[in-house]
Amino acid sequence: MSALATRVFRGQERVEAPDPADRGLAYGDGLFETLRVCGNTLPWWPRHAARLARGAAVLDLPMPDRDWLQDQLAELLVQAPGQGVLKLMLTRGVGGRGYAPPARPEPSLILSLHALPADPGPLRLRWCRTRVSLQPALAGIKHLNRLDQVLARGEWRDGDIHEGLMLDAAGHLACATSANVFAFIDGRWLTPSLAAGGIAGLARDWVLANEPGAGTTALTPAMIGSAQALFLCNAVRGILPVGQLDELHWPPHPGTERLRRALDRELTVA
Amino acid sequence: MSALATRVFRGQERVEAPDPADRGLAYGDGLFETLRVCGNTLPWWPRHAARLARGAAVLDLPMPDRDWLQDQLAELLVQAPGQGVLKLMLTRGVGGRGYAPPARPEPSLILSLHALPADPGPLRLRWCRTRVSLQPALAGIKHLNRLDQVLARGEWRDGDIHEGLMLDAAGHLACATSANVFAFIDGRWLTPSLAAGGIAGLARDWVLANEPGAGTTALTPAMIGSAQALFLCNAVRGILPVGQLDELHWPPHPGTERLRRALDRELTVA
Repeated sequence: MSALATRVFRGQERVEAPDPADRGLAYGDGLFETLRVCGNTLPWWPRHAARLARGAAVLDLPMPDRDWLQDQLAELLVQAPGQGVLKLMLTRGVGGRGYAPPARPEPSLILSLHALPADPGPLRLRWCRTRVSLQPALAGIKHLNRLDQVLARGEWRDGDIHEGLMLDAAGHLACATSANVFAFIDGRWLTPSLAAGGIAGLARDWVLANEPGAGTTALTPAMIGSAQALFLCNAVRGILPVGQLDELHWPPHPGTERLRRALDRELTVA
Repeated sequence: MSALATRVFRGQERVEAPDPADRGLAYGDGLFETLRVCGNTLPWWPRHAARLARGAAVLDLPMPDRDWLQDQLAELLVQAPGQGVLKLMLTRGVGGRGYAPPARPEPSLILSLHALPADPGPLRLRWCRTRVSLQPALAGIKHLNRLDQVLARGEWRDGDIHEGLMLDAAGHLACATSANVFAFIDGRWLTPSLAAGGIAGLARDWVLANEPGAGTTALTPAMIGSAQALFLCNAVRGILPVGQLDELHWPPHPGTERLRRALDRELTVA
């Protein structure tokens, strides 16, 4: 699905296209956010801005000026469909050959608008062979080094399969390729801690903060197999109930449906 | 150090700049090679082309047509300095939002020419805190997910320090940020196996193939501390003797010097 509109900036200057020497391209030296657009607004902008700032601190990347960025977003959102997706990429900008970060980087920013994907209904999942990299230095942040997910998502072409679950290096559940995972076990919604790697999603944070008893733990594939319900979640599509994982099937679960509706209200409040 | 000349291609079409939706930028979904240029030629082109093809097989990325690519390289090398560096980036090209690789990708290719860095003499090294990601699915190939190295290289700004050594997830030596490492221990040159992560460099391959007794093993920091000599190597700069690692000092070693001269002859045969 190609973008409805795209804007590229070097520092605060609008440019035609990324520079071939951009460190985002050379090294994946940057961050991204994918936001739900609703009625020309970004209901979760403060949460995304806060996570972007956390990632920028880890990578020692200067954040764009807050007011300037808000202005650019507002200008682009005029073109947004009623419900859509905004992707934001922030890189360390142009650099010479070699890994040493420039002393005074001028970050690049790429903003693009996309249509909201259709609601797929209860998801059909599979297990991926590709595991999430073990890299505690980058755990939790939404950086541009995403070959783990690309390899995992490349494991199937069957259009009937919506998503794949990935294990971490220790063989515990980590995440789906583009969402976090919760399993309902013994009356509680549980999700992996992600201390070793993977993205700590904002929808995941929301569930942990808003669902009584929700928590993090190490989840083995066997525990997933015996879970009473499963859902995926991310900040664009909210809660996505899982209907099937390989040979396992789950009927709709009232707790999933309740959370789905509550998060949908959050994501679509203009 | 900025490029002396750059060419960007989408498929076989020359274009002005990378597309903002290039998957190399979005996900680091691609590969690179850094080659020594000598007298308008690439002495190790067949080795680099073979490694690029191995990486492309891992990522399921189509390789550019061999003859077409050779023609593009030859055209660019007309502008090359007598001794220089050519960087080649190959990405999966433009894609929509989402990790699923396009069914028929049209790869992007970026070629750039750079000056050869000056010979720094015996290197001064430090240990890095950032470790190499544990990701066996990507081990050995030269892909564009290089945040491990960016973080490690960002740990110091002291211009007197040339390079940093990185450990793997298990706490064994993996590599320097942009080179492989050999240590002379009990009469043999030894280098890490890199089964868990890191780039298997072509200069490393050359040493393993050409130096009697050279081999791979797990190297602890203590073993490095008691090594009789240490060198780094890569396909651009050849063998780089190490003079210092934090508080440790090594005098020049005749074995290093012999290997350095032999590899230099290889890299500068036009």
